[in-house]
Amino acid sequence: MRVKGEHYFTIWLKDEDTSTICIIDQRQLPHQFIIEELGSVSDIVEAIRDMHVRGAGLIGAAAGYGMYLAAIEAGHSNAFEDRVLESANLLKSARPTAVNLEWAVSRQLAAIANGRSVNEKINIARDTALRIAREDADCCRQIGMHGAAIIAQLSKIKKGEVVNILTHCNAGWLAFVDHGSALAPVYEAFDSGIKVHVWIDETRPRNQGAGLTAWELNTHGVPHTVIVDNAGGHLMQREMVDIVLTGADRVTRTGDAANKIGTYLKALAAYDNRIPFYVAFPSSSFDWNIDDGVKDIPIEERNQDEVKYIDGWCGDEIKRVLVTSPGSPALNYGFDVTPARLISGLITERGICKATEEGILNMFPEKKDSA
Amino acid sequence: MRVKGEHYFTIWLKDEDTSTICIIDQRQLPHQFIIEELGSVSDIVEAIRDMHVRGAGLIGAAAGYGMYLAAIEAGHSNAFEDRVLESANLLKSARPTAVNLEWAVSRQLAAIANGRSVNEKINIARDTALRIAREDADCCRQIGMHGAAIIAQLSKIKKGEVVNILTHCNAGWLAFVDHGSALAPVYEAFDSGIKVHVWIDETRPRNQGAGLTAWELNTHGVPHTVIVDNAGGHLMQREMVDIVLTGADRVTRTGDAANKIGTYLKALAAYDNRIPFYVAFPSSSFDWNIDDGVKDIPIEERNQDEVKYIDGWCGDEIKRVLVTSPGSPALNYGFDVTPARLISGLITERGICKATEEGILNMFPEKKDSA
Repeated sequence: MRVKGEHYFTIWLKDEDTSTICIIDQRQLPHQFIIEELGSVSDIVEAIRDMHVRGAGLIGAAAGYGMYLAAIEAGHSNAFEDRVLESANLLKSARPTAVNLEWAVSRQLAAIANGRSVNEKINIARDTALRIAREDADCCRQIGMHGAAIIAQLSKIKKGEVVNILTHCNAGWLAFVDHGSALAPVYEAFDSGIKVHVWIDETRPRNQGAGLTAWELNTHGVPHTVIVDNAGGHLMQREMVDIVLTGADRVTRTGDAANKIGTYLKALAAYDNRIPFYVAFPSSSFDWNIDDGVKDIPIEERNQDEVKYIDGWCGDEIKRVLVTSPGSPALNYGFDVTPARLISGLITERGICKATEEGILNMFPEKKDSA
Repeated sequence: MRVKGEHYFTIWLKDEDTSTICIIDQRQLPHQFIIEELGSVSDIVEAIRDMHVRGAGLIGAAAGYGMYLAAIEAGHSNAFEDRVLESANLLKSARPTAVNLEWAVSRQLAAIANGRSVNEKINIARDTALRIAREDADCCRQIGMHGAAIIAQLSKIKKGEVVNILTHCNAGWLAFVDHGSALAPVYEAFDSGIKVHVWIDETRPRNQGAGLTAWELNTHGVPHTVIVDNAGGHLMQREMVDIVLTGADRVTRTGDAANKIGTYLKALAAYDNRIPFYVAFPSSSFDWNIDDGVKDIPIEERNQDEVKYIDGWCGDEIKRVLVTSPGSPALNYGFDVTPARLISGLITERGICKATEEGILNMFPEKKDSA
């Protein structure tokens, strides 16, 4: 996507011959656009854990690059395999809910194993990291095209009037390498001339909606309005929402979807008001080994200070203020699971399917035997 | 309730012979405990509109005192009735959703009309203001006793284990003259030795949960944890909530309840997880003239800056920080309506009834002919 006229991905190799990874430091957005350079596995782990980078696809891509740095670092030691595995475990433990992290690390381990020399292994790791990133952007572009068809249909039903889309958290290009998942159809529809307006859930505690999604849509010129997470139900009751589009961090083979905490509440409200609720994600976010998402998807518990303190722009710098009563404890789960029964459909790079095991396996027949 | 060993109401007459009204300035909590003195109708209007005072009962009591000041001010003019009516309209327009405001103003107008001289009218207005405040506190005490029985029953079912109560916004003593509505049963149960723990929704955009409810429970020693508004659904899915208790700002004769924006989402989650959802309020919050709450209760739209900026403690003062992307608009509805079908029961000063017209009118038979 373009920022101030220049094209950016969310993560890239500084140049082909170096081992420096560049990212947009998303903790600084929407207030400052700052490029950060990462040069080691521990830099990448920290960037994932402390959310300099976040979002299903981008976490996967960052892990892919992390494994490239892991191979380089292991090349300096006498125990290549041990060091690589150590780094792999460090990376995997940085965020427990996002399945793309595990997926990217496992893919790298399998690829690296094919190298016959340390140098070849390092080259394979670099190529695989680049491929994971490129595939992520490609998948998102295809999600955009499939999802835009749904928006186009709603636009037709509304006779060209504005289609109101509600989204939660940030599932835009900042959450992936490019394009985004839930926002890819929005960009695609908007660029093709369909009138859209996006209600953006603020998304406490880290305000990825108010900060990142609003910044993205503003940068691209897409009409939008920020609301508190509490407001979506009321807007749906008042027929001010035509469709809900969210991303996902992990989706079971039965269609249960883990996404940013609060998604489940919006799915309930959409269901109660007969509003279509779609979840968009690249198939790398499927967890083919889990049937019951509510029971079995691990839910990350993050530091309670993310609830108690809020970062915002004050004067000419980012300041941190305390909003809770001093002495009161807080609890901070990062995700919740929306049961498949509340989901109208899943949008992946292959197309749109029902949120059922049958619907999913018809679209991904090669996974039929993976249970 | 007691603050640092001293007993406080949320609003009181400075002394019997003056026309100075004292309030706790709730915009400063939880960071500073500051008493503010109000001496005119316009002071009261500003205090209600800008939320120095807030909460169904306290808004009603403030309006009662406001009408006392209105009578005094009208006494200085040549057109007593006109001036009183003008003040009444000013007060009523300060917050459109809270029915207690209208109710208190109308009650004062009817009472003042009985006075035969300006002096008598002023005396009547003072007595009525004091009575409205006293009755509010009394009703809340009774709500506490009725509601505590439900908590006691849950405690018995759980064999004395901690009963986990989720609440939204602040419906504690700070929202009334004393005791509170949703929190009155919690205080009553806690004081009688029942083990309770309260999940407090932060309650964006004004954070009355994180600020006021957490401060209240902390001050009283009731175990509690602050969560973001997004988290309640997940906690319910994981069986970490035994009951949801909220207040209400306006309840229809059919049991639909307007309360702080976001309440509806929690009611949906409670319903989806078969968790009892009770709404507690003094009967002064009934609107006997409305049948369909979702269609007919007016919903206040507040300034979008309440969404964009957050006030918090920073260093040694309250600072305001911008959280949304600069240039992005926001929308700020103050309330939503929870349909009666999602409510397990209503707790009023007369007892507990079903959230149906039949259940309500059986408890308030004198209202049967008021439709």
